[in-house]
Amino acid sequence: MNLKSTNLIVVTQRESETFLREGRLAKMEQLLEPCRVVSAEDCSPQEWESVLREANPEIVVGGWAMRPLPANALSELAPALKYVCYLAGSVRHLVSREQIAAGLLVTNWGNSISRTISECALLLTLSCMRRLTYWAEQMHDKGAWKTPATETQSLFDRRVGLHGFGAIAKELVPLLRPFTSRISAYTEGMPDEVYQEYGVEKADSLEALFANHDVIIEVEALTPARHKIIGEALLRSIPAGGVFVNVARGALVDENALVRVVKSTDLQVGLDVFAIEPLPVDHPLRGCRNVTLLPHLSGPTTDRRIDSADRAIENLQRFREGKPLIAPITCEVYDRST
Amino acid sequence: MNLKSTNLIVVTQRESETFLREGRLAKMEQLLEPCRVVSAEDCSPQEWESVLREANPEIVVGGWAMRPLPANALSELAPALKYVCYLAGSVRHLVSREQIAAGLLVTNWGNSISRTISECALLLTLSCMRRLTYWAEQMHDKGAWKTPATETQSLFDRRVGLHGFGAIAKELVPLLRPFTSRISAYTEGMPDEVYQEYGVEKADSLEALFANHDVIIEVEALTPARHKIIGEALLRSIPAGGVFVNVARGALVDENALVRVVKSTDLQVGLDVFAIEPLPVDHPLRGCRNVTLLPHLSGPTTDRRIDSADRAIENLQRFREGKPLIAPITCEVYDRST
Repeated sequence: MNLKSTNLIVVTQRESETFLREGRLAKMEQLLEPCRVVSAEDCSPQEWESVLREANPEIVVGGWAMRPLPANALSELAPALKYVCYLAGSVRHLVSREQIAAGLLVTNWGNSISRTISECALLLTLSCMRRLTYWAEQMHDKGAWKTPATETQSLFDRRVGLHGFGAIAKELVPLLRPFTSRISAYTEGMPDEVYQEYGVEKADSLEALFANHDVIIEVEALTPARHKIIGEALLRSIPAGGVFVNVARGALVDENALVRVVKSTDLQVGLDVFAIEPLPVDHPLRGCRNVTLLPHLSGPTTDRRIDSADRAIENLQRFREGKPLIAPITCEVYDRST
Repeated sequence: MNLKSTNLIVVTQRESETFLREGRLAKMEQLLEPCRVVSAEDCSPQEWESVLREANPEIVVGGWAMRPLPANALSELAPALKYVCYLAGSVRHLVSREQIAAGLLVTNWGNSISRTISECALLLTLSCMRRLTYWAEQMHDKGAWKTPATETQSLFDRRVGLHGFGAIAKELVPLLRPFTSRISAYTEGMPDEVYQEYGVEKADSLEALFANHDVIIEVEALTPARHKIIGEALLRSIPAGGVFVNVARGALVDENALVRVVKSTDLQVGLDVFAIEPLPVDHPLRGCRNVTLLPHLSGPTTDRRIDSADRAIENLQRFREGKPLIAPITCEVYDRST
């Protein structure tokens, strides 16, 4: 370590109280010594440059409010900088591909948030099957009660189809398992052994996945080839009484097609993500009552931000010991990220 | 079997299509031969008496619309009657204690519906933690989106306290287990081995259960001693940020106290059951936005009514073979039922 370096932790008061609660801030300070905690609220771009120049840190830990790394950070401002340990998700606004290519180590919350996303997927699925949000609103505003014709559904013994089989799907399977053993997944290029390891059937195609399962859950990564891959024909092929949930990325779905389908069928839909976020106030999905909308809060929940901090602490220890980091953001990962 | 008897299946068209779908009606007819299917919609009290007199059944299978058994059913109308196999829940309106005391066998759906109730308990719990119904409504009607101050919670690693440890609790534990191992229960008179078998901590008292768990779920049976047992002090003792869910019986809770608590705290509440059902249109719980309301539809869902029919078929087979029935409604069970 460069002896003239002072490492930086750049967080807001709220980040300190959520991500770094219960001794985590102190633990990080200890790992990063000598270390300075910078109040992200009070740090203008000019101040950020002078903080970097003055501290010349080897390690920067940052939260959402951390300023982007200036283009001359590695060459001029902070030549000692080796590792940016980001506590949140997307780093595209924060570091450039060039900085990663030049050897800068970068990590983020990675799949430490996957289990809260999978929890949200289960919640939206169960909610669609019981029509929870419909009933909650009718009960509050319309004095409603059930009638003999009221229809509800259970997840028990249902056929569940997962589009995608990454970290979220792998956390989701154990949550679904107590309800049903009829779980299939479809994604390109996944070895058969992975499906077998999780006790999940491999669907032959995206078309077969949609047509043969009562519940479809989007957990696929967004790539240019998958932009709007979920179109009207796929959505209409979900069996009657079916459920469609998206906790992955909104742009996987042709939202205009989705609006047409929900307006003309009984498909129950649960969405946490949208092609444009925040969802525009006049977006036609707003008001479609067989669609349950959430404002992209699947993961991580406030109380589980500590999972990201624990991952960061593990990585900081590894960095100190010269060991490989968990899930570093390589140029390849950077290019795939959204 | 009495040779002059014709057994009866008394169901509506809708019950036939839900409880008895996919060959279950035919299977029952075969088990009950000679058997007559009576359309419950068309059966007035007078017709019901003449149907009973004419058929003198040994077995009657019935759904919700089946008429009560007349007081003189066993003595005069249908002296061959031995077994009423009810497809739904409460039988108090259907048969009298005297008829059971006189030897009439009676069964209902028993705990075949417990797992859908436990599913609803999990749904309400997850929904309260994410404030799903709040967000769904805000997103539809107010153009809402999250802010940096938005708080959400996860069930992972939370302390869950079950009040009651009967059939619903035992189905609920496996659904909670993937989220947390910190599950406790409180009920009177349950042997320690039962808690151990399910890997659940035994709480020392109802007070300790409420004060030491983030999520409290009511799954307790209603008895006169438990009428309004959940009062204001217990509800206020749930830790800050906590959740209270009731899928058992509304009368366990002092609803006036609950209204006072939800109006003055941040307690998130999920209710499927109420002291008076249907919930009165002007009930003060309607409009309390930290309370998620459902119109008592926890169990069974429409698609799982087949579980009750499968239980009934098993019992009809047992009756035919002279074996003991699953969960017969004895006088003791009758007295405890609501």
